[in-house]
Amino acid sequence: MSRVDKVRVGIVGASGFLGGELVRLLHAHPYVEITMLGGASSAGKRLAELRPGLSVDQPIEAIDANRLAERCDLVFLALPHGESGSLAKQLLGYPHLRIIDLGSDFRLRSAADHQTYYGREPIDEPTLQLAHYSLPELTGAPPTDCRLIANPGCFATALALGIHPLKGQLAPGARISVCGVTGSSGSGIAPTSRVHHSLRPTNYAAYKVLSHQHLGELRQLLGAVDFEVDFVPHSGPMTRGIHLTIMLRKSECRQHSLAAIYRQAFADAPLVDVQAGPVDMGAVIGSCRALIGVEGDESTAVVFVAIDNLLKGGSGQAVQNMNLLCGWSETTALPTLATWP
Amino acid sequence: MSRVDKVRVGIVGASGFLGGELVRLLHAHPYVEITMLGGASSAGKRLAELRPGLSVDQPIEAIDANRLAERCDLVFLALPHGESGSLAKQLLGYPHLRIIDLGSDFRLRSAADHQTYYGREPIDEPTLQLAHYSLPELTGAPPTDCRLIANPGCFATALALGIHPLKGQLAPGARISVCGVTGSSGSGIAPTSRVHHSLRPTNYAAYKVLSHQHLGELRQLLGAVDFEVDFVPHSGPMTRGIHLTIMLRKSECRQHSLAAIYRQAFADAPLVDVQAGPVDMGAVIGSCRALIGVEGDESTAVVFVAIDNLLKGGSGQAVQNMNLLCGWSETTALPTLATWP
Amino acid sequence: MSRVDKVRVGIVGASGFLGGELVRLLHAHPYVEITMLGGASSAGKRLAELRPGLSVDQPIEAIDANRLAERCDLVFLALPHGESGSLAKQLLGYPHLRIIDLGSDFRLRSAADHQTYYGREPIDEPTLQLAHYSLPELTGAPPTDCRLIANPGCFATALALGIHPLKGQLAPGARISVCGVTGSSGSGIAPTSRVHHSLRPTNYAAYKVLSHQHLGELRQLLGAVDFEVDFVPHSGPMTRGIHLTIMLRKSECRQHSLAAIYRQAFADAPLVDVQAGPVDMGAVIGSCRALIGVEGDESTAVVFVAIDNLLKGGSGQAVQNMNLLCGWSETTALPTLATWP
Amino acid sequence: MSRVDKVRVGIVGASGFLGGELVRLLHAHPYVEITMLGGASSAGKRLAELRPGLSVDQPIEAIDANRLAERCDLVFLALPHGESGSLAKQLLGYPHLRIIDLGSDFRLRSAADHQTYYGREPIDEPTLQLAHYSLPELTGAPPTDCRLIANPGCFATALALGIHPLKGQLAPGARISVCGVTGSSGSGIAPTSRVHHSLRPTNYAAYKVLSHQHLGELRQLLGAVDFEVDFVPHSGPMTRGIHLTIMLRKSECRQHSLAAIYRQAFADAPLVDVQAGPVDMGAVIGSCRALIGVEGDESTAVVFVAIDNLLKGGSGQAVQNMNLLCGWSETTALPTLATWP
Repeated sequence: MSRVDKVRVGIVGASGFLGGELVRLLHAHPYVEITMLGGASSAGKRLAELRPGLSVDQPIEAIDANRLAERCDLVFLALPHGESGSLAKQLLGYPHLRIIDLGSDFRLRSAADHQTYYGREPIDEPTLQLAHYSLPELTGAPPTDCRLIANPGCFATALALGIHPLKGQLAPGARISVCGVTGSSGSGIAPTSRVHHSLRPTNYAAYKVLSHQHLGELRQLLGAVDFEVDFVPHSGPMTRGIHLTIMLRKSECRQHSLAAIYRQAFADAPLVDVQAGPVDMGAVIGSCRALIGVEGDESTAVVFVAIDNLLKGGSGQAVQNMNLLCGWSETTALPTLATWP
Repeated sequence: MSRVDKVRVGIVGASGFLGGELVRLLHAHPYVEITMLGGASSAGKRLAELRPGLSVDQPIEAIDANRLAERCDLVFLALPHGESGSLAKQLLGYPHLRIIDLGSDFRLRSAADHQTYYGREPIDEPTLQLAHYSLPELTGAPPTDCRLIANPGCFATALALGIHPLKGQLAPGARISVCGVTGSSGSGIAPTSRVHHSLRPTNYAAYKVLSHQHLGELRQLLGAVDFEVDFVPHSGPMTRGIHLTIMLRKSECRQHSLAAIYRQAFADAPLVDVQAGPVDMGAVIGSCRALIGVEGDESTAVVFVAIDNLLKGGSGQAVQNMNLLCGWSETTALPTLATWP
Repeated sequence: MSRVDKVRVGIVGASGFLGGELVRLLHAHPYVEITMLGGASSAGKRLAELRPGLSVDQPIEAIDANRLAERCDLVFLALPHGESGSLAKQLLGYPHLRIIDLGSDFRLRSAADHQTYYGREPIDEPTLQLAHYSLPELTGAPPTDCRLIANPGCFATALALGIHPLKGQLAPGARISVCGVTGSSGSGIAPTSRVHHSLRPTNYAAYKVLSHQHLGELRQLLGAVDFEVDFVPHSGPMTRGIHLTIMLRKSECRQHSLAAIYRQAFADAPLVDVQAGPVDMGAVIGSCRALIGVEGDESTAVVFVAIDNLLKGGSGQAVQNMNLLCGWSETTALPTLATWP
Repeated sequence: MSRVDKVRVGIVGASGFLGGELVRLLHAHPYVEITMLGGASSAGKRLAELRPGLSVDQPIEAIDANRLAERCDLVFLALPHGESGSLAKQLLGYPHLRIIDLGSDFRLRSAADHQTYYGREPIDEPTLQLAHYSLPELTGAPPTDCRLIANPGCFATALALGIHPLKGQLAPGARISVCGVTGSSGSGIAPTSRVHHSLRPTNYAAYKVLSHQHLGELRQLLGAVDFEVDFVPHSGPMTRGIHLTIMLRKSECRQHSLAAIYRQAFADAPLVDVQAGPVDMGAVIGSCRALIGVEGDESTAVVFVAIDNLLKGGSGQAVQNMNLLCGWSETTALPTLATWP
């Protein structure tokens, strides 16, 4: 593929954590060229100056739909939650453009759910319905005529990979207990006391107990089921990574060999590996893989899920979605080996 | 109390993490004098030379029951699991000596349990029965004539504080799901790849799933109950600290106001605080406090427990036991404020 | 000393890192009682609610000189730099009050130096001259009638302990090269991208190269000398601690046995230890000690200094100053053993 | 290039940190195929089982020169120091094989230097002289007929990049002061108390003061110069990375515009960037770049160097050497963007 054939991509929100990972992944992608970086507060600076580790000597420009449309074929939006909606709508006005949104603005199809889980009004209904929520291992490759992809949330990705295969396997009224932990990069680049370096190393604490907003995505994806998920997320003292511990009572499972169910569910998924026993979160850091482990005794099944929140839980999955949308190999430019150590 | 009146204490295993914390706490204790430090591989060195942060210029001497008996009134044993038994037995031969064992050798009363949980034969039955398992908030002050105290394990302490108050509150057949996480100091000072600094920061992984040996202590302490505890411990990338997330179905609880139950259970416990909502593990690091949080929705109750594994979960509790045994104020020389940051 | 005899202390800026350490140290101090906590943005909250690790159930009150004067005998000011001046001046209006300022407002005696090193106008000259800069190991015990103590800066403390003993030992025109590193708590509690937990673990970078403001304190303390100090401070990925590496050419030293010089300089200092060879910063974390190490070959001498920036480099030294001012033992309530691990 | 044309590479020492990075880099390299993994203690296991993050399902085989020769065109040796010599000699017996040694066995040309810096006898003189020490930015591309490359040490790489450009710029008798810091991965995977996760976070300490063995490589590379280098390395609480702070007196520099000198020295080096001001070590972590910063005042120049010790300071440079040896683009498969955060 010659340079002239490359898909021209723009990254809006290039100075954030997800934006930075998009830059790094797409910089090494053989079929795309980064033609525009957009940002709000960072506009006017060069990326390499603002983020010395991202030595791509390109300017960050003010966010402008027209300019994005002129210079890009596909635009990634890595903006704070709630800020993608109107920009995406504008961009949809340019028929050649495709958009992959890493924010939460298009993940939920129902306006009521936006109220429930985010306490805000979503974009107008017709625009909302244009979005395709794409977690490829569960929703398949996005339709080729799809113009707007809603990329799943980080905890949502882990929860869905760990729980969706259980659909049809559980007795009515079953409850699944899930403990999750996420690293500080999950909170984004904005400095707050929650991500203060002096405090986080000893920080381990639950938050949004039984009420995390990513439960909305999970429930939408699961559809009508007669089991419940009790999810307690925690912040932990790591930089990256999500780890879930999912506990089920075997008395509430139809089938006891859960490992087989997971292996089958992800048999064709190049980015999901299933193993017996616990998984080490470190084995996926820097990688776009999800790792699922299955263990248990005669009474209780325990399923573990580990992902890198910025890769399979964010920018990596966004690139995976682009690869599928463009008809390329699903894992093009996606690291499958972890950075170790 | 004049110097001559101080209780003379020995610390065996002074160069380990628990031993180091004993040195630090007892060095500042107004009623004791450290009169002997014992060690195996570290014998012959001075503590301040081996552990420059513990600037107590005392020699570490080879472990010798006779010398300990001559120079001490009370001996703390902070030895690797399985190495306290015979030494404690020897020391019991000196009628003036009292022993507080921080290892696991005397925690379980039944020889069969030693086989089940540790896969080893305990010390002889008569010696074993001399030991008093003391988790003061649950077992009360040790009897004044007690000569050998078995100090609880770190996870056992957290589990017991979080679960014991539920006794009598749960429906028959109830199951409690517990996720726990512990820092690297819980593995002790011996260097292994599990505690390699280059690997641990991304490490978050379950181990001994549903089968941690501290369940033995918990079950012994609970006695006959008709509920089950599913406990999944994890290693995490912090240095110190234990955090538990305990999940219960309200349909299996007799009483819904769990907060009141915990508040009542620990009303007189100066080292246990109960609060509404999640607890931050950082709030107990460097402190001998246990922090319990209670939260939930209409279906599910969630209880959190946080302790510093080396203090309330180890050396601090050992000093608490000594304070009670000697009739001093329970919290003498025990920090209740965390080191922050 | 009965409760009624205790010195009543106030802590202004109680919710910051230095304020928190003051609370912790003074809470365990036998001769004082914390009678008031003051804060600006934190006013109206209870300390235990705002900082769950500091379980002192006292309110933080708005900063008010009159109330401080009514309720306190001695006030510690742990405010952002530049905010102590006018408050201290007000407090000096109450003749019974003594003030220990942990900020930089009173450290430099000359108004010109305030301009050079801080780019700001200090408080008026008469007030400025009331302050006594007190680094006890070098300036001795503060005069008993002293009413306002300027507590040294963290890097300034380390630099002064490491360099002041060289006065008189160096050839004219000598230059000393100093590399220093400080942990994230040195930046204070305000969250910034410099102390973002996701970024700091890989962060090691120099800042204020050859121009750190604490050089002003050092030069004032050294007085007229004919050698120069080249100081390059770095931020590093630790939470606490300062470590200095001081390099000298032996051809520019009058005397080659530097160890003897340091040992003599600190022979009577209970909080400074001198040793041969490198020092591990970890050996002073949680401790109020300074550790000095001396090493070298035939051409070059290397001196190391390690302190905990919040203790000997901040709140610990402030309490040391209070102890001396009040005629108590210099190390009362000051930890000398490190927290280990 | 078809699969059959790919260069067949073997990695001996695949389970260590440098070996792991070789696996990760070479797995994504378009012109090579990993055909054999060798190890000593790890032989018989599969890599993916031993290092779950390195999901390359290949066995680690016992180290056997004959088998390596059969299956490989080029072999990387990532063995503990002192263990490459005899294996490399054996492998040189197979005329088609090329060897890149990441250990220290072939870095020094003189047997006397091996004694001085490592206290050991090197391999025999003829074998030793076959080795080509290759730090490409300073020694150029290795000769095409080179069969054995000695890959530089991590600190040696940083020191050489920072100091070699000064050759010819310094007055006779000049001394350069260098403070360096390295992360825990520099100590390798073998667990020791120096890399215990509970101790390293507060660890900052000098070691091998003025006597680090990598000074041998530096001096060999510099050849006859009339200035001296005083190097004090430190261990620090980061996982990866090396940072140097180099201080020079301007009175001992012939030319004051050091930035120009560095820019010129590395004008054609795709993996070295020169900038004004300090450098953040985080900007090279995960990247194969070296970053050099130049700053100073009228009296003193300060030069900073940052590299990832496992990439530009190890496996990345080894791949760079392979690329040059094989006539490929120098940076093939080498990341130039850092992992951020």
